[in-house]
Amino acid sequence: MYNMDKLYEAVAERGHVCVGLDTALEYIPEKELKGTDAIFAFNKAIIDSTIDIIACFKVQIAYYEEMGLAGLNAYSKTLKYIREQGALVIADIKRGDIADTASRYAKAHFEGDFEADFVTLTPFLGMDSIEPWLKWADNKGKGAFVLMRTSNKGRNDFQCIELGTGRKLYSTIGDKVSELANSRLGKYGYGPFGVVVGIDAQSEQERKEGASIRAERSNLFFLIPGYGTQGGAASDVCLLLREGNGGVVNASRSILRAWQNADEKKDADNASVGLYARQAVIEMRDAILKAAK
Amino acid sequence: MYNMDKLYEAVAERGHVCVGLDTALEYIPEKELKGTDAIFAFNKAIIDSTIDIIACFKVQIAYYEEMGLAGLNAYSKTLKYIREQGALVIADIKRGDIADTASRYAKAHFEGDFEADFVTLTPFLGMDSIEPWLKWADNKGKGAFVLMRTSNKGRNDFQCIELGTGRKLYSTIGDKVSELANSRLGKYGYGPFGVVVGIDAQSEQERKEGASIRAERSNLFFLIPGYGTQGGAASDVCLLLREGNGGVVNASRSILRAWQNADEKKDADNASVGLYARQAVIEMRDAILKAAK
Repeated sequence: MYNMDKLYEAVAERGHVCVGLDTALEYIPEKELKGTDAIFAFNKAIIDSTIDIIACFKVQIAYYEEMGLAGLNAYSKTLKYIREQGALVIADIKRGDIADTASRYAKAHFEGDFEADFVTLTPFLGMDSIEPWLKWADNKGKGAFVLMRTSNKGRNDFQCIELGTGRKLYSTIGDKVSELANSRLGKYGYGPFGVVVGIDAQSEQERKEGASIRAERSNLFFLIPGYGTQGGAASDVCLLLREGNGGVVNASRSILRAWQNADEKKDADNASVGLYARQAVIEMRDAILKAAK
Repeated sequence: MYNMDKLYEAVAERGHVCVGLDTALEYIPEKELKGTDAIFAFNKAIIDSTIDIIACFKVQIAYYEEMGLAGLNAYSKTLKYIREQGALVIADIKRGDIADTASRYAKAHFEGDFEADFVTLTPFLGMDSIEPWLKWADNKGKGAFVLMRTSNKGRNDFQCIELGTGRKLYSTIGDKVSELANSRLGKYGYGPFGVVVGIDAQSEQERKEGASIRAERSNLFFLIPGYGTQGGAASDVCLLLREGNGGVVNASRSILRAWQNADEKKDADNASVGLYARQAVIEMRDAILKAAK
């Protein structure tokens, strides 16, 4: 069974929230900042308090690489803990390299210290940078989300650039990932590899673009960033869902830092972190479920 | 002083060779395969035996990530050792993420356990994925090579795709990196950030394309892959040099595995590794210097 099928089922059972564990030291209550395990302890508080109400977790490796070897140790422990608890985890690594190098990255992130259920990939170098990862879908059910169209300012530099064919670059990426998906459809009609799709919901044109991307890519599961701190609302992300499923919606800071809005901030510990994170996830989950109806 | 200026001077003094430390366990002589430090010991043999005849080293992080935390420990030790010896090192990480995440990656690879002199970057998400790294050029002289045009099969999927303007995607990338470079030119006329450029030298059209990319981008230093195992020859890479400088040429396997072509292979140790690596580098260096005249 592909992990993407498991993710579909997780969404059906527990909603669309993907909790982003982009954990920085400044997100941790002062009284919990003891020793090198503070990051993992904070993550554990978030995981334990939200695991029954989320679709999956996503861990942004940059936050851990920033802290060097100790950070990557916390990254490894976090992935292991999530998987031991039976939840799915996306390693947000955005790797992209060719041939033999891609195979080595795949081994790095689909087994051993950094084993995840899904990764994010950058397609820039071409499909030969994506294909080596497919072996892991075939053999172990692993999944990936290929960057297709994001909502950051720089999207217009390359991703959304108009091609000679009149289409945009991201459409060509979508075509190629769809092709891969078609030869490997899972039990709910989605390929083992999906795409990352975000839109700037402030723009009416982008909302239309989002709806049309969703309509065109019925075989691709979406990883949707930009909820909460990045400004997206429930009604916007619903444009990117399909029959109430077909996508997970990531939020990070609005969940990890929810405790910082609480009154008793100066006395906060990881118990408060968990409490407020759970509240934030429930609100987000219910807002999306309501809008998706 | 920008690291890119130092790299220019290194090329002028010692030639164009960039030794790629893409070290896999299978490249190491059997009798040296003891314990987790085998990777670092092998790298040290290569570094010590070639440091006076090369422009810089390049370390492909995928080979180390593949081995998990122990691998990244060897990666860290390798970077530190190279820098302690006074040589320049490119971290071939091909990272690319936006805003705050990019800043965290920059901190990860420009200070601390993984500090390098240069990194490689993927521009796919847009220039807001490149700009956060520039602070490190301004404050610490750090450098980067942005992926622009590579020679792998998949280059035609996206990088070399024709745009609505009639130009190719990689030209637009070149324009944007050139713009950044122009506001920060170093003492030899190159910006602190250059580009990765490779061509398929078997194709006459690509040779022409290479020459025209070089002519258009006089302010960009090139990191040129594809020498040796990937099929490039000295006369081809010279198409991408400028007045005998302006680029470093990477080779990895042809140097790391040179000892495996030797007669006494079964008795080989790291002394043989160093000996044959040095020979391979001298041949490569001299071939390029001769062709560049």
